[in-house]
Amino acid sequence: MEGIIGIVPGFSWFGKNIGIKDGTLDFGGIFSDVPCQAAGVFTRNTMPGAPVVVGREHLRDGILQAVIVNSKNANVATSQRGVEDSKRICELVAAQCGIEPGLVLPSSTGVIGRRLPMDVIKRGCATLVKDFGKTERHIENFARSIMTTDTRPKWVSASLDGATILGIAKGAGMIEPNMATMLCYFATDAAVPSTLLRPMLKRVVERSFNRVSIDTDTSTSDTVVIMANGLAGTKSPDRFEEVLSEMAIYLAKEIARDGEGATKLIELLVSGAGTAEQALLTAKSIINSPLVKTAIYGADPNWGRFVMAIGKVFSYSVDIARLKIIFGEGSERSMIDADTLDRDEVPLDKISEILKRNEICIEVVIGDGPYSERVWGCDLTEGYVKENAYYTT
Amino acid sequence: MEGIIGIVPGFSWFGKNIGIKDGTLDFGGIFSDVPCQAAGVFTRNTMPGAPVVVGREHLRDGILQAVIVNSKNANVATSQRGVEDSKRICELVAAQCGIEPGLVLPSSTGVIGRRLPMDVIKRGCATLVKDFGKTERHIENFARSIMTTDTRPKWVSASLDGATILGIAKGAGMIEPNMATMLCYFATDAAVPSTLLRPMLKRVVERSFNRVSIDTDTSTSDTVVIMANGLAGTKSPDRFEEVLSEMAIYLAKEIARDGEGATKLIELLVSGAGTAEQALLTAKSIINSPLVKTAIYGADPNWGRFVMAIGKVFSYSVDIARLKIIFGEGSERSMIDADTLDRDEVPLDKISEILKRNEICIEVVIGDGPYSERVWGCDLTEGYVKENAYYTT
Repeated sequence: MEGIIGIVPGFSWFGKNIGIKDGTLDFGGIFSDVPCQAAGVFTRNTMPGAPVVVGREHLRDGILQAVIVNSKNANVATSQRGVEDSKRICELVAAQCGIEPGLVLPSSTGVIGRRLPMDVIKRGCATLVKDFGKTERHIENFARSIMTTDTRPKWVSASLDGATILGIAKGAGMIEPNMATMLCYFATDAAVPSTLLRPMLKRVVERSFNRVSIDTDTSTSDTVVIMANGLAGTKSPDRFEEVLSEMAIYLAKEIARDGEGATKLIELLVSGAGTAEQALLTAKSIINSPLVKTAIYGADPNWGRFVMAIGKVFSYSVDIARLKIIFGEGSERSMIDADTLDRDEVPLDKISEILKRNEICIEVVIGDGPYSERVWGCDLTEGYVKENAYYTT
Repeated sequence: MEGIIGIVPGFSWFGKNIGIKDGTLDFGGIFSDVPCQAAGVFTRNTMPGAPVVVGREHLRDGILQAVIVNSKNANVATSQRGVEDSKRICELVAAQCGIEPGLVLPSSTGVIGRRLPMDVIKRGCATLVKDFGKTERHIENFARSIMTTDTRPKWVSASLDGATILGIAKGAGMIEPNMATMLCYFATDAAVPSTLLRPMLKRVVERSFNRVSIDTDTSTSDTVVIMANGLAGTKSPDRFEEVLSEMAIYLAKEIARDGEGATKLIELLVSGAGTAEQALLTAKSIINSPLVKTAIYGADPNWGRFVMAIGKVFSYSVDIARLKIIFGEGSERSMIDADTLDRDEVPLDKISEILKRNEICIEVVIGDGPYSERVWGCDLTEGYVKENAYYTT
């Protein structure tokens, strides 16, 4: 379960520059030699991008054979013409690959509100057959072509009884609930029917990408897709889901770590909650709090901001006498509770040291209930502001 | 209705340094020659500071005669001992002023989780009688003594049929819903019974301070209090409420304008909503979006981020064909709608010019429903991050 590229038999990839905006890689694709069982989970934003509209339609029968992605332009808020553009791209790809347009899933990420440069994309599609290839280099180029403000490509692979699963993702900004703002594509040669893949992918996304937050903004383009070409035969669905979950959590953490301007990955466990909802609301309230995020950025042991963030979940109340905030792990764990407070023994210096790391684990115990939730996020820095103040134009 | 100080007969004020943290003004008070009808609205944070707990108790009978405030330390998350400290301060003030402790409302603002330096505060209370005075200078010192990261004091005054109302506020950070994170004190010589003041203040806060957002964090110390000493006799309650509302909106805008790191005041009107809830949720979603706030900071006409923020109100959907986003006012109004999009005529340069101002009006029309909401906020800058990454320690 590491960030290495595993080659999945039967899948081809490409990533290249076609000049949508500048000279960086901006166009990529995935192609399977045979039609795949497939499933997708998309943004909950009520103004989804055109590719999401078309992608949902093309996934209705649970079969895909190709994915085509452009960065630099999200094709969002482009009205019916945007939807037609996305469909047209599927047709262009399908014609090149000799398949039906309905087997192609389109994705776009980048600026909102501008029409895609269709002439540029049309030229980009003309050489697809020779662009696709099965080497690591092809996969890496694909991973790079879907990046926007990501500072590095993100991939993970795993083996399962002779089958391989590969996941490629991008993240960076507009990342929060109900699908972190992101694109993620899983390809596998395991045989898993779409009727199983669909509910499985939902559960996996719920545990992973829906537990990541960068800035509380929810993209209009979020897409997670899985394609299973079946070449390696049937595998245990339970085991498959387990591995897929681990891979998705790995990528989710990579996305948080590479959040716009981020310098630190924060892993937060909220435990002792009376309900699952309380655990998640509290975890989200803390991980999204700008004051918590800036304190962590500055390695300022300002634990009072955790108290504030817990207290702004208005629908539940927490007894401060039972609250515990634990920074760090293992032997370096530093705890704040009613007792350390009463004795004026809050280990501020130790907490500050822990907050200087680039990966920080924090546990917040809010009572003695049985529910807990783990979420991931990042610090808030001047870099986030700079990146987003001058991004589009 | 301007930011000028009006002297209210019967009220005395002070603001001074007692050395809680450094040499700046950190201790202030208000005293009325006679007991006042009074009301308060406090934070909804479920972990309120000790002064909020005591203040609620002291306001139960609707009568106050003094307010005592310290900055630099919020007396929050300080357990029962914090509550005892706040009560002790009321006793010290009451003894000096010759009144009952239950007539004193305590407030504290500053860092969370540290005990108040009671010896310092005790010394600070010893000279109260000579500290209090009725001049503009005394009022200004009070306004300065309650500041934390505010860059300037905030006041407003109004006349009403021979009575005067004066409002003094602080804001700056942890500012969002359900009482912007702030302290605000209104003093008037109009006679208004607490039974009227209580519901009136709630309505006024709802229209003003609950419509301001700086960073989505909700303080544990929010307090708005009004004291009416009655010396100028009875006035029309409707007219009084109207004036009080205008004053509160003025102060709310001042708080947004002076948000931590803020360079711009944003006034956002969301109209055409199908329900009041839709209007408010949409307005809050836009005004709180880090991507909208950073775009405005950079004067980047990235209107697609408005679409994203509207779309992340999952409980309502908006038809993008009916969406209008209008930047600026009067003759400079620049609109984006389905029509300008279809004709590729979005006036990006004009919008960018408007976004360069330090006060920006934006209207978002989300349909043809009858509901609208106006909210205020500010941009998100590197200054906010800097200020909060290194604040406590």
